Amino acid sequence: MVGLPARGKTFTARKLVGYLSWLGYPTQAFNVGEHRRVTVGPGQSHEYFDPANEDAARQRAGLAKDALDDACRWLRQAGRIAVYDATNSTRERRRSIRKRAEAEDFELLFVEIVNDDPAIIEANLRETKLRSPDYEGVPEAQALADFRKRIAHYENEYETLGEDEGAWVRLRNRGAQVVINRVYGYIVGRVVFFLSNLQVSDRPVWLTRHGQSVFNMQGRIGGDASLSVSGAEYAQSLAAHVRDAFPAAANLDVWTSTLRRTILTAEPLGLQTGSWKALDEIHAGACEGMTYAEIERSMPGEFQARRRDKLEYRYPRGESYLDVIHRIDRVLIELERYRTPVLVVAHRAVLRAMVAYFQQLPIVETPHLDMPLHTVIKLTPTAYGCLEERVPLAPQVEN
Amino acid sequence: MVGLPARGKTFTARKLVGYLSWLGYPTQAFNVGEHRRVTVGPGQSHEYFDPANEDAARQRAGLAKDALDDACRWLRQAGRIAVYDATNSTRERRRSIRKRAEAEDFELLFVEIVNDDPAIIEANLRETKLRSPDYEGVPEAQALADFRKRIAHYENEYETLGEDEGAWVRLRNRGAQVVINRVYGYIVGRVVFFLSNLQVSDRPVWLTRHGQSVFNMQGRIGGDASLSVSGAEYAQSLAAHVRDAFPAAANLDVWTSTLRRTILTAEPLGLQTGSWKALDEIHAGACEGMTYAEIERSMPGEFQARRRDKLEYRYPRGESYLDVIHRIDRVLIELERYRTPVLVVAHRAVLRAMVAYFQQLPIVETPHLDMPLHTVIKLTPTAYGCLEERVPLAPQVEN
Repeated sequence: MVGLPARGKTFTARKLVGYLSWLGYPTQAFNVGEHRRVTVGPGQSHEYFDPANEDAARQRAGLAKDALDDACRWLRQAGRIAVYDATNSTRERRRSIRKRAEAEDFELLFVEIVNDDPAIIEANLRETKLRSPDYEGVPEAQALADFRKRIAHYENEYETLGEDEGAWVRLRNRGAQVVINRVYGYIVGRVVFFLSNLQVSDRPVWLTRHGQSVFNMQGRIGGDASLSVSGAEYAQSLAAHVRDAFPAAANLDVWTSTLRRTILTAEPLGLQTGSWKALDEIHAGACEGMTYAEIERSMPGEFQARRRDKLEYRYPRGESYLDVIHRIDRVLIELERYRTPVLVVAHRAVLRAMVAYFQQLPIVETPHLDMPLHTVIKLTPTAYGCLEERVPLAPQVEN
Repeated sequence: MVGLPARGKTFTARKLVGYLSWLGYPTQAFNVGEHRRVTVGPGQSHEYFDPANEDAARQRAGLAKDALDDACRWLRQAGRIAVYDATNSTRERRRSIRKRAEAEDFELLFVEIVNDDPAIIEANLRETKLRSPDYEGVPEAQALADFRKRIAHYENEYETLGEDEGAWVRLRNRGAQVVINRVYGYIVGRVVFFLSNLQVSDRPVWLTRHGQSVFNMQGRIGGDASLSVSGAEYAQSLAAHVRDAFPAAANLDVWTSTLRRTILTAEPLGLQTGSWKALDEIHAGACEGMTYAEIERSMPGEFQARRRDKLEYRYPRGESYLDVIHRIDRVLIELERYRTPVLVVAHRAVLRAMVAYFQQLPIVETPHLDMPLHTVIKLTPTAYGCLEERVPLAPQVEN
């Protein structure tokens, strides 16, 4: 990461770690500020960050090096992507990082966050920095003044990324402008695409499974069945709930899969609806239309393999949860950039993957998340994560 | 489009029209140069492009307006995306385009092509402009000198895109740097992602279907069968052919689907292989494992529906050709940016979609392209399209 304090580096790093982990790449952030608070203790005033303060500068350089060492060690051992979350605000500093990456044979991408809108910086300051352990117990006005001086120390020596600094992406003013420089690799390409679409938004997202289907009643998986009587009742409850909970419902977009049970569930809403093939339920291939008991009886090997590793197990000529994650990737990126509120009417496996993304849950938990029928989930992004509310609606049924 | 002459605007416009048409969006380019050649006649010398030449300037403004009128008329009637291919090199010119777009309620995206590498400009000049009807029968040195003067007329008044000019993307030096400004919509987002990954390359791509499978012999579709004896022989022929035709074969990457018949076909090559779920054959859903005769007998309605519209017909709980196109989109974008030569071992429907993309064929032809077994297709991009060579290998079998 590259950028002055309070520009949103840590927010971006956290989103990136969440996204890449969700795709299945072991990813971890290494934050120099946290390292400092552990080693030196929190609550250093701005003087500590003054380059003229030579003792502190030496100490800060040592902390930065320690965090980089940690990142490199982790990459050599278990990791795939390390996000080195520090200001890295001078060409000299970045040159030394590049030398290190080359020596270790790691691919390097700088992600610079630039913000020249004072209102956004002010909001960042209030939302995140004032809650930092560095200012615990410090009156707000005093904390703000100190942090502004801390920023000023960095501003004096800040150098933006130059064309000759290899692969990088610069995000300006929360995605209003994105500059991509010499980015060619596959994973870095996905990172850049994700970052280019990342908006900082507190717009909530509503999720629900379709109403109960005839197949649900019979315990059969897959297929393209219609709604049961209870399922059709849920579609009515959902429409009433949305009209209630979201008075400006005319501004709500509804996304369904291409399968009948989601389209029928959305119908009573009477809103603008788009149907995505990418939101279809996990494809059970040769097991479509079977009950779990039938699979266990007629294909015991498959049944066992799925029980052993539900995340990576792929149905014969069907999909795994990991396949579903990579297939809905583009829907999620679209959701991240979308400006209209959205209700997603989809399926159990698909919604498990979506909740895992928004809540940044460990990928192995994805196939086991609780995802009941006839329940609306409202996810509201916050600076530090995501607020989840679940509202069960009538009629409640077995899952 | 925005950019000086010979920067590659028309090449980019053509790629964009091909890509968006392939995705199923009616897209057309409106080229002011072609309009001029039809109306005024080809072969105008550089004086015609001198802003000081008032008569010609008035005429050129009229031609530009005519082409824009054509684009708008087409958008109102049948089109979804019009690519307005002209220099549009001043803010004033672009302001008038924006006013027009706002009046018509069209979304607007400027695509600026900037090149400050003299070697690339020189190559563009020689590859495209010298072959233009404007210079038919003109000696090369004279044509070059005239075109350089034509560029100079535009250079004097050229203004690069400013932050206040709305949604735009700037592509510098063949993708070395990409700047994205205020791009938020869905289709424009896909356009920008495509353009960001577009390299100008003459690197060929090899395609082949898997060797004959046991299901092919039985006339069954879908499934995950192994190779027949002939299919295994083809895998050997393919390996020998690749070693012959591509001496630096160690540098070749091989992409297969996740299905057994492609993986087994690639095996004798002994090269670095990646397997993509996105390259799997069109999913026949409820018809997997059936013969066409069986489908006709037991599901006559489905059989007829598919015959009527093979492009959009979707198998029950399976896919349509259009689904396949949207699913392999990301493989193709990856292929566009990839720098290593690639051999793709895949399936009939998938390869039809890939050839349709590279050859910019009308989308309705996609499901009907000839795609025989045991044949290697080599596609070599050129400035104006794509060269296709087909080499049948032993043993030849029924399809």
